Amino acid sequence: MTAIPDFSAVEAMDAADALRAFRDRFILPDGLIYLDGNSLGVASKAAFAELQQAATQEWGQDLIRSWNTAGWFDMPLTLGDRVGRLIGAAAGQTAVCDTTSINIYKALHAAMALRPDRSVIVSEGGSFPTDLYMAEGVLSTRPGGTLRLEGVDADTIEELIDDSVAVVLVNHVNYKSGELRDMAALTKKAHEHGVLVIWDLCHTAGALPVDLDGADVDFAVGCTYKYLNGGPGAPAFIYAATRHHGDVSQPLSGWWGHARPFAFEKSYAAGKGMLRFLCGTQPILSMRALKGALDIWEEVDMAALREKSLGLTDLFIALVEAKCAAHGLELESPRDRAKRGSQVSFSHPHAYEIMQALIARGVIGDFRAPSTMRFGFTPLYVSYEDVWKSVEILEDILTTGAWKDARFAVRAAVT
Amino acid sequence: MTAIPDFSAVEAMDAADALRAFRDRFILPDGLIYLDGNSLGVASKAAFAELQQAATQEWGQDLIRSWNTAGWFDMPLTLGDRVGRLIGAAAGQTAVCDTTSINIYKALHAAMALRPDRSVIVSEGGSFPTDLYMAEGVLSTRPGGTLRLEGVDADTIEELIDDSVAVVLVNHVNYKSGELRDMAALTKKAHEHGVLVIWDLCHTAGALPVDLDGADVDFAVGCTYKYLNGGPGAPAFIYAATRHHGDVSQPLSGWWGHARPFAFEKSYAAGKGMLRFLCGTQPILSMRALKGALDIWEEVDMAALREKSLGLTDLFIALVEAKCAAHGLELESPRDRAKRGSQVSFSHPHAYEIMQALIARGVIGDFRAPSTMRFGFTPLYVSYEDVWKSVEILEDILTTGAWKDARFAVRAAVT
Repeated sequence: MTAIPDFSAVEAMDAADALRAFRDRFILPDGLIYLDGNSLGVASKAAFAELQQAATQEWGQDLIRSWNTAGWFDMPLTLGDRVGRLIGAAAGQTAVCDTTSINIYKALHAAMALRPDRSVIVSEGGSFPTDLYMAEGVLSTRPGGTLRLEGVDADTIEELIDDSVAVVLVNHVNYKSGELRDMAALTKKAHEHGVLVIWDLCHTAGALPVDLDGADVDFAVGCTYKYLNGGPGAPAFIYAATRHHGDVSQPLSGWWGHARPFAFEKSYAAGKGMLRFLCGTQPILSMRALKGALDIWEEVDMAALREKSLGLTDLFIALVEAKCAAHGLELESPRDRAKRGSQVSFSHPHAYEIMQALIARGVIGDFRAPSTMRFGFTPLYVSYEDVWKSVEILEDILTTGAWKDARFAVRAAVT
Repeated sequence: MTAIPDFSAVEAMDAADALRAFRDRFILPDGLIYLDGNSLGVASKAAFAELQQAATQEWGQDLIRSWNTAGWFDMPLTLGDRVGRLIGAAAGQTAVCDTTSINIYKALHAAMALRPDRSVIVSEGGSFPTDLYMAEGVLSTRPGGTLRLEGVDADTIEELIDDSVAVVLVNHVNYKSGELRDMAALTKKAHEHGVLVIWDLCHTAGALPVDLDGADVDFAVGCTYKYLNGGPGAPAFIYAATRHHGDVSQPLSGWWGHARPFAFEKSYAAGKGMLRFLCGTQPILSMRALKGALDIWEEVDMAALREKSLGLTDLFIALVEAKCAAHGLELESPRDRAKRGSQVSFSHPHAYEIMQALIARGVIGDFRAPSTMRFGFTPLYVSYEDVWKSVEILEDILTTGAWKDARFAVRAAVT
């Protein structure tokens, strides 16, 4: 993008936006420009409607009978298939259950059990930390195993892959920089050494097209409360390629994964396919809000989603660099569209205070220590005008020095 | 109980019921006698109010800010302490998170890590099966470990306890028979051999007074969707005695259990106390319904609860035995009050069909293969009149042979 658009050009972008009608399906608080959908996606009318139905009718009136009559029992797999469609997974390979962390644990154990004579896990020093903590947890139950990290043990993850490695656990988009990895190329490189790959899709599911089957991926995990808008702490998902279903096992072998869960047998017998990745009783109310959110996704063209995502991030980068150039912001996200997720990060020595000032003015992004301001662009409900206005406010905060107000320096316990 | 009460005596019991006012706090569907609160507790106005607030205001309007402003981040421990008060746990020993199955996995690993030179888990052949499946899962990660079962390897669990045993995993009330174990005595016997004990409280939390601290229990787990009325699949709880907090570890070491979760460190460092039993992001909507349900429990006198529970089960047993004696029902639950939970089970060769006929007439209990009819009595919302009416209907179904209708023999996939 060479010419910097003016406001009328931005209005024209919204007028031409193929996804513009989706915005009305969401609950957008008045006076807020919400650029934090990569942390918690906004609520939708469909999610609220499903939640209401699940609470008042199914729990309130039908009670225990809803396990059958309302499809509660089937939800991990029926919702799994609906998430699967968004990440390039043919039916029967995705389940919705538990948390991303728990699903990483399952996938890592499953992969290592498929490579019993290997003991190395490769991951990224810059990973979202819980991935590394879960890898540590898995290794605590597998004496002799080791964890090799990109940025610590070598510069690139590719250099760490050799025939001693059982599995690579890698983020598709980095949570901090928004950098997108080449899924097909890394998976191919791993497979050449007999290494399995687990992709963490927390920042790509619902953010851009993903093609797990096409890239020959082994396992994947991700959350549903960011770009998928499933609600706070909505259950996560896990994918396992069909070719592994015959042999795969994982130690969180609870009742819901049993081949005959209502026979009350004394010994575990793993159910078929993705069933064996299920464990305990799932939070039905949270899962039903997610079901509502997924109804909207049935109508979304993922190529159009990607085009708008790049349009929004292109515009944000261009406007910030044009209008805020004098204030020391450094782009931390890839300028190259092919390597960019659906977020833009800028660093600044006073990133924390500037973000607090933005939030006080109704522009919600987030801060990641030590110096990153992170802005997520969710194409279903963020407009080009939102981008324009957020940069106007950022420019004002920087120009006036409003961020220097002492109240913006007070750090909450959770950010 | 020698004399069989008549209906006016039953009405008098309701009139004298100290807990009677609680019934109005719950959503009781018209025309239903709900004796399945030991499978899924009923909804309450308080739970719906919290859910509504969490959805429309906190998610819908406040979005990401609610992690701080609405206390989302603190809920696993604040709700944990509120559950703790109902199970005899002083503050700081109980967390609400994940599922019962996952929490069993954590507790078993934690206990075995505290007994590194022992490798035996003792449990019950008649356990709720997921406990055994999770024990198998734990042992799959600990080569050389073994599982010894009451009813398989010996007649009683006490006979299986010796100095080779690391941990006993045992249900406080049996899910099928409703038999209550002596928590203090079994825990003491285990401790005499250096064995740790995990109590599964799924059928006692909210059903009767529990005294974990008083019985010197090591670990406990349980669900919140049965007697606590937290909602379908509401998050479970886990208890660990303070004396173990310094040394304890478990392999599901996710971000929420980290000592500094927002420092984004590369290595795991377990948080203090119950924090280290947390793992991934919890389902906030489901947790908020639970919070509403727990508001009601703040007002409940647990001794009065137990008294009413026994009054209800006494009455049910007496009426069924008096009115249905000719029809081949056998009491499977303890006649001895001291050994009885808050449910009554009767066996019958046609238990499945009879239960279906009861459900068709608006009396909801459940069936457990091969021949058990299970009736749960939740003192906060079941009345003595409910008991009377349910036995009237049961008597009618047995006397008329209404259960022989072919439609009652068709088994659903899930019961």
